[in-house]
Amino acid sequence: MSTDTSSYNGVGIVAPQRAHFDRPLTLRSGAVLPAYDLVYETYGKLNADRSNAILVCHALSGHHHVAGMYAHQTDNVGWWDNIVGPGRPLDTNKFFVVGVNNLGGCHGSTGPSSINPATNKPWGADFPLVAVVDWVHAQARLADHLGVQQWAAVVGGSLGGMQALRWTITYPERVRHALVIASAPKLTAQNIAFNDVARQAILTDPDFHGGHYYEHDTYPQRGLRLARMLGHITYLSDDQMDEKFGRKPRNGSFSFGYDVEFEVESYLRYQGDKFAGYFDANTYLLMTKALDYFDPAREGDGDLAKALSVAKAEFFIAAFTTDWRFSPGRSREIVSALAKNGQAVSYAQFDCNYGHDSFLMADPEYHAAVTAYMGRVSV
Amino acid sequence: MSTDTSSYNGVGIVAPQRAHFDRPLTLRSGAVLPAYDLVYETYGKLNADRSNAILVCHALSGHHHVAGMYAHQTDNVGWWDNIVGPGRPLDTNKFFVVGVNNLGGCHGSTGPSSINPATNKPWGADFPLVAVVDWVHAQARLADHLGVQQWAAVVGGSLGGMQALRWTITYPERVRHALVIASAPKLTAQNIAFNDVARQAILTDPDFHGGHYYEHDTYPQRGLRLARMLGHITYLSDDQMDEKFGRKPRNGSFSFGYDVEFEVESYLRYQGDKFAGYFDANTYLLMTKALDYFDPAREGDGDLAKALSVAKAEFFIAAFTTDWRFSPGRSREIVSALAKNGQAVSYAQFDCNYGHDSFLMADPEYHAAVTAYMGRVSV
Repeated sequence: MSTDTSSYNGVGIVAPQRAHFDRPLTLRSGAVLPAYDLVYETYGKLNADRSNAILVCHALSGHHHVAGMYAHQTDNVGWWDNIVGPGRPLDTNKFFVVGVNNLGGCHGSTGPSSINPATNKPWGADFPLVAVVDWVHAQARLADHLGVQQWAAVVGGSLGGMQALRWTITYPERVRHALVIASAPKLTAQNIAFNDVARQAILTDPDFHGGHYYEHDTYPQRGLRLARMLGHITYLSDDQMDEKFGRKPRNGSFSFGYDVEFEVESYLRYQGDKFAGYFDANTYLLMTKALDYFDPAREGDGDLAKALSVAKAEFFIAAFTTDWRFSPGRSREIVSALAKNGQAVSYAQFDCNYGHDSFLMADPEYHAAVTAYMGRVSV
Repeated sequence: MSTDTSSYNGVGIVAPQRAHFDRPLTLRSGAVLPAYDLVYETYGKLNADRSNAILVCHALSGHHHVAGMYAHQTDNVGWWDNIVGPGRPLDTNKFFVVGVNNLGGCHGSTGPSSINPATNKPWGADFPLVAVVDWVHAQARLADHLGVQQWAAVVGGSLGGMQALRWTITYPERVRHALVIASAPKLTAQNIAFNDVARQAILTDPDFHGGHYYEHDTYPQRGLRLARMLGHITYLSDDQMDEKFGRKPRNGSFSFGYDVEFEVESYLRYQGDKFAGYFDANTYLLMTKALDYFDPAREGDGDLAKALSVAKAEFFIAAFTTDWRFSPGRSREIVSALAKNGQAVSYAQFDCNYGHDSFLMADPEYHAAVTAYMGRVSV
């Protein structure tokens, strides 16, 4: 993403911060993380009441750099800059917005590429698998660190929306509003299947070395590239792909070989190469597992309404018609569960054409709905 | 697929046959195949008029063994045995049914694993890429070899349906009926994208050796396994996967590791392993490219109706509601084009729950419709 800085009116120059936590964290798996760091960014000012804080949770490949740009790298604009800033839907004139890189990430927070204090080598495959609830516990400690007792809102798209949902169940007193966008209460078998193919691509890459590739000075680039190519197909809508690429041959005619023939191949391979150039494969594996495990209804004996009944937040649930990864029906499962409990919930569905990725786009109707909802959030 | 032979009432014991063609075949790509073999099977008897022959075209991973079983291998039942046999929808009491392994295949017909007479080594990556029209030309020569001037019907599902469609355009005088099932007039960008990820998995497998793995005594098993896992997801419906596997953990609880945790993972990995154990990777690549290239409308300046206007066949087009690989809308594109031309076309859509794979299933309504249609085919 690039931006014309001359007309840019977002949060401007930002800098990441780091918080160290040395109280051990017992994870959902039973493993104990003795200590960890979280890297985060903040935008806007925490008010005197500490009542205007918003947590933005990231999805599979996201991180703490949600908005603004770095002084030394002005083209590195946050992944959700279009929604966070002065006068934007998550208005930094009113709110204090926090972005955090989740535990297990590869953008500064403790994760598989960090040094394991027990061995003085990178954790690699020994880094424990984390669940969404573990992220929420870690984020709660970050909230303590920032002096935020209660979030005005927890906001997220996709896997980020799952964290927002989990916050309302695990810390009902600590979140007033949850914005759950393009998300689902749990993965389907098909969702898990796509994740497993992506994981198998990485795990069976000869350069993976059981997750200890750092020590072998290799990198499972082929596997991660395939995983990302596959992921990308599920992020885009079928129609959007047809509009954007159609069946256009790259060079006007067919070459009858295995080099790029269609524009769509060129695009996907480029996306795969780019991603494999900077993302950590162990983190990718771990994030997909967190997705697979997420299923809060389990705590309600399979009844989502029962699991959500403890929540005290008000909910904004949004979905996109062209999203086939987490279709609107999946969002409506959450809406139905909340409605069954008589809990406060707004639901909006948008015809934005970008498939699952729509949640990242500045669709006017979608942004207007978030703006309207956030306007009613008192601080 | 297994069968209880005690109650089996199909075509019974069959044997493959081989035909050699030494007239060079110029392929769509411009490459010339100097000579080739086709392996085929036949069921039922060709009548005196030679007017009762049906050609069954196979899809991506199919072959000539359409029906019956082998004397030495009675559990090896043909892939479409449920539709071909005495009293079955393609009734061998009335019709003479032919199955053929396509050029480029790996079940006996000349393909990448065959010996290239120019080098006395396997063709490997030097085997020319083929298009659907090349298969049709080769099948036409097989028809000549069998003494069949005109097919009563050409029948196929998925990629097989594309061959049936192509027959009606390339040899309009030689086909009276075309049964095009769970097919499409061309791939979408998303279809091509899935194919490209599958191909990249194979092409980037270090054991692929540029397609010359036979000589290196290796095999790109990892890549082919991934390709098949991915393919399988697109063959099944989302609902069917949920019904069949849901989110059932394999061992009752989670292990928080990368071994199989969900039933659906176990199923997919098994399918991938099985397929990679017997299918040729170069053939898989070539078949997916034939799919990508298929687009007969090109010959009508992008207008499918114009391209189909030369056809003299009557058409039976069928689709399955739960098929998201080639959704019913894709079949209706063919129907609309034919209807626009005033050509004879029947369309049927079935609610069978097996996604794209439905065309292989013995769904009663679907089979009844094929039976009824074939009952009207005069011989």
